[in-house]
Amino acid sequence: MEEPIVEFELTKDFRDRFQQALDARDAAFIRESLDGVKAADITSLLYEFNAEESKYVMDLLPLELQAEIISDLDPETRKNFLKIYQPSEISTFLNQLASDDTADILHELPVKEREEVLSGLEPELRAQVTELLRYEENVAGGLMAKELIKARQHWTVVQCVDEIRKQAENVSKFYAVYVVDNDDKLIGRVALQDLIISDARTVVGDICEKDIIAVETYLEDREVAEIMSRYDLESVPVVNVAGQLVGRITIDDVVDVITEQAEEERQAMTGISEDVEEDDSVWRNTRARLPWLLIGILGGLMNAKFMGLFEAQLISLTAIAFFVPLIQATGGNVGIQSSSLIVQSLANPNFVDEGLWKRLLKVFFVAILNGLFLSVIVLLANIVLFQEYELSTVVAIALFSVVLFASFIGTITPLILNRFGFNPALAAGPFITTINDLLGLSLYFLIVRIMLI
Amino acid sequence: MEEPIVEFELTKDFRDRFQQALDARDAAFIRESLDGVKAADITSLLYEFNAEESKYVMDLLPLELQAEIISDLDPETRKNFLKIYQPSEISTFLNQLASDDTADILHELPVKEREEVLSGLEPELRAQVTELLRYEENVAGGLMAKELIKARQHWTVVQCVDEIRKQAENVSKFYAVYVVDNDDKLIGRVALQDLIISDARTVVGDICEKDIIAVETYLEDREVAEIMSRYDLESVPVVNVAGQLVGRITIDDVVDVITEQAEEERQAMTGISEDVEEDDSVWRNTRARLPWLLIGILGGLMNAKFMGLFEAQLISLTAIAFFVPLIQATGGNVGIQSSSLIVQSLANPNFVDEGLWKRLLKVFFVAILNGLFLSVIVLLANIVLFQEYELSTVVAIALFSVVLFASFIGTITPLILNRFGFNPALAAGPFITTINDLLGLSLYFLIVRIMLI
Repeated sequence: MEEPIVEFELTKDFRDRFQQALDARDAAFIRESLDGVKAADITSLLYEFNAEESKYVMDLLPLELQAEIISDLDPETRKNFLKIYQPSEISTFLNQLASDDTADILHELPVKEREEVLSGLEPELRAQVTELLRYEENVAGGLMAKELIKARQHWTVVQCVDEIRKQAENVSKFYAVYVVDNDDKLIGRVALQDLIISDARTVVGDICEKDIIAVETYLEDREVAEIMSRYDLESVPVVNVAGQLVGRITIDDVVDVITEQAEEERQAMTGISEDVEEDDSVWRNTRARLPWLLIGILGGLMNAKFMGLFEAQLISLTAIAFFVPLIQATGGNVGIQSSSLIVQSLANPNFVDEGLWKRLLKVFFVAILNGLFLSVIVLLANIVLFQEYELSTVVAIALFSVVLFASFIGTITPLILNRFGFNPALAAGPFITTINDLLGLSLYFLIVRIMLI
Repeated sequence: MEEPIVEFELTKDFRDRFQQALDARDAAFIRESLDGVKAADITSLLYEFNAEESKYVMDLLPLELQAEIISDLDPETRKNFLKIYQPSEISTFLNQLASDDTADILHELPVKEREEVLSGLEPELRAQVTELLRYEENVAGGLMAKELIKARQHWTVVQCVDEIRKQAENVSKFYAVYVVDNDDKLIGRVALQDLIISDARTVVGDICEKDIIAVETYLEDREVAEIMSRYDLESVPVVNVAGQLVGRITIDDVVDVITEQAEEERQAMTGISEDVEEDDSVWRNTRARLPWLLIGILGGLMNAKFMGLFEAQLISLTAIAFFVPLIQATGGNVGIQSSSLIVQSLANPNFVDEGLWKRLLKVFFVAILNGLFLSVIVLLANIVLFQEYELSTVVAIALFSVVLFASFIGTITPLILNRFGFNPALAAGPFITTINDLLGLSLYFLIVRIMLI
């Protein structure tokens, strides 16, 4: 008996040995070492080599596996990799894939090439894909696959089984038969397990679950993800505005959506502008990071210019400068915390929306409590550490104001970004931090100006 | 025909109307308005009311639905909510649930109560759960459910169907029959769709896929999630060290793992210490945010004390202070970017680990490029803005050093945290930002001291 594979481990040794084999064009070694390895693992391996080497490896593999690998590649890499193939070759790959994966890949191609590849697809797949291409990639219609088992409500279990037998080659994963009426309107679903245990002559309309969840084609992908994870669904049927069954989405596609969303959010929060990974090239890593760093620099220069306006005050009491980092760091921390709580609520909207004013009122109370607590601590600490009573009071008051303002900015910014269709997580990133820094500094010096000098 | 439900919308109006009904103990309204509503939606609704009100609603619902709702609640809320039930009542709920959900809930109960609840479970469930309780919650053994369809390799399709019929009541979702040998060792799986289209007399050992992926009981939950999402699996069998089939994990549990992971990471990055949501109480929100803010304050005070050491220099050239925000903000941004790239690689480890030194070397090159670029820009800008040649040079050199150091700290901190079993995302949070602030300041003043005065 063969052991079930737990995981293929891509070690440095294997990679180096594989590189040798590639250099020597040792087809026998490559074929043998990749025998039984899953597509996803070969894909990871190919990331280690250049396009030409990857193509050499691909050419040694069965067509079906090649197609799976192409489908597994991340879009950026795929776009470049497919350039070394002719449109007709790409069509051959796509003929092996499901309609949703085919549509995703076609979306990435330049229009002219897309048409050429489309014309090389098998007629059924071409028809399906042409329909899918009409949808944006980030809505249910763009996530769904056309392959599914559709049964009329008057069909018997035997008829369904025949249909499943017919479709078995096209549909790789299915968990249920969808039941429709004569107008193709979705009526319900029969889970495969129920089909198995039902008598052959049973009419499916009688055994189907009717109270099922479906999504409409225009629903956003993150909402589809939310619904599937909320109701623990492994697949969900997609209907058009007329209620007709047009496709289905499986959970594996949604897992990708969830993962990408988390990734995007992290990138927004950390100010990394491209989809870059640690093992990408030095230059790509540098380029991805620079834009946001430059915004920080610009903010820093504005801070410097602003402090310059208060040079006279700073000369007469240098200690004013000591507390700039304290004020700015706290403003930054408070702002990021506030933004991220809003981002989180926007991502999981399963609570009653209290309306903007009630939300702000609450944020305001939290800020007052946090602000009071921190100010008192800083006041006491400063009196002990610096024995400057007046300045200590000013710093405490400024800190309190900064906590209030940063909470406010941190709360409304993601709401505004979201309203205008931007990723709200940007609010927890360097852009807002930079604004908060400047705001904190202004408040501090304003209060210094009013109270101290 | 009933429309398929797309989503139950929890509006403020409905919530308020429901509150009225609750106040009036209007059982008829409550029963009617919740008719046909899914457990997950009722759970969301209950979050809006207190424990006593929730119990009143629960008592009006069918037992099965009550059990589902209990299973849907988030652990923190559930822990408090279950306090108003007797152990025997809890057992009644749990008897409706699958073994994995039951084990999760039992894990949360105090030991004495857990024993009482266990003794009230039906014998089969009790045996299953007792086995599951042996595992940590964050490994495959703690995620898996015991309910599955197990077939001997010599069984025919008919025998499998009989087994499915027998188990249909216990196993809510299944996608495949797992085939084992006489020692219960996992041999392969037969997808339900293949079972349906096979002849009744076929022996399952002949039609089962043998090259399947299984995970061992001790595998960490995030690795299980990685494997399931990498290979697009909707369920995965779990085997013990002897290769015997002991359970299975379904994708819905893994979706929860992925979502929680993203959540934990966000909390770590933003310094929110408790599992808090925007709609939690003011006091809870305040408390969750304070600890990290205090660390920031402590850092700020240390910054102040440190700058105090350079009071003489600041008095002789006040403009030194102008660039403190610039230096610190850039250090912070660079540090967070570096950390988050490492956190990302640690989360998706599907590339060859080049080893620590090669990694650091690359980080070093990226830092040099970014640092050079930013320093030149700042140098030119400062000369234009402030006409202070010497100070501008010092600032540029300090900035360059800070970019280098912050990259280094941002890279090694998550690696160290990860090595010692902490969440590496903490490195992108306020703690490291605070350290980076202090480090940036020290470097800056050190260079000022050496070069300027």
